[in-house]
Amino acid sequence: MADDTSNIDVLNSTAKSQLLTIIERIDRLEQDKEAVTGDLKEVYAEAKGNGFDTKIIRKVIRIRKQDRAKRQEEAALVDLYMHAIGDY
Amino acid sequence: MADDTSNIDVLNSTAKSQLLTIIERIDRLEQDKEAVTGDLKEVYAEAKGNGFDTKIIRKVIRIRKQDRAKRQEEAALVDLYMHAIGDY
Repeated sequence: MADDTSNIDVLNSTAKSQLLTIIERIDRLEQDKEAVTGDLKEVYAEAKGNGFDTKIIRKVIRIRKQDRAKRQEEAALVDLYMHAIGDY
Repeated sequence: MADDTSNIDVLNSTAKSQLLTIIERIDRLEQDKEAVTGDLKEVYAEAKGNGFDTKIIRKVIRIRKQDRAKRQEEAALVDLYMHAIGDY
């Protein structure tokens, strides 16, 4: 047999196309990520150009993120407790 | 004077709206980045579920990226040399 099944280490055609799709999807997502990272750099450069301290902006972003996470956590707990007492 | 200009450390309304826009844009981009990161995780999880070794997939992605960068660099140099000899 000369086809793929002659060697257990060779991928069959299903696996091949699965792998190709996976690699292509990752490639595209990595490119998306790079684009977003580039956009972020641009915004920070613009902020700097407008005279803002980007270190402080990064801190503000971080604080807002923490606050948001905390608010979401609290909301989830309120929801949980409300459900627990049958009051929803 | 009771308005913003009474204190040099207080942002004027233009700066305020600039800052708000900047913060909002960064927030949106950070969310985009998180979404892409989540999508990437999903693809890798799917790859693993299909029996692929994700460590190897990461290596393949890295190799392809290096190759792409090299090809682009080479193409740029070819272009540069072609222009240098007036042959474009």
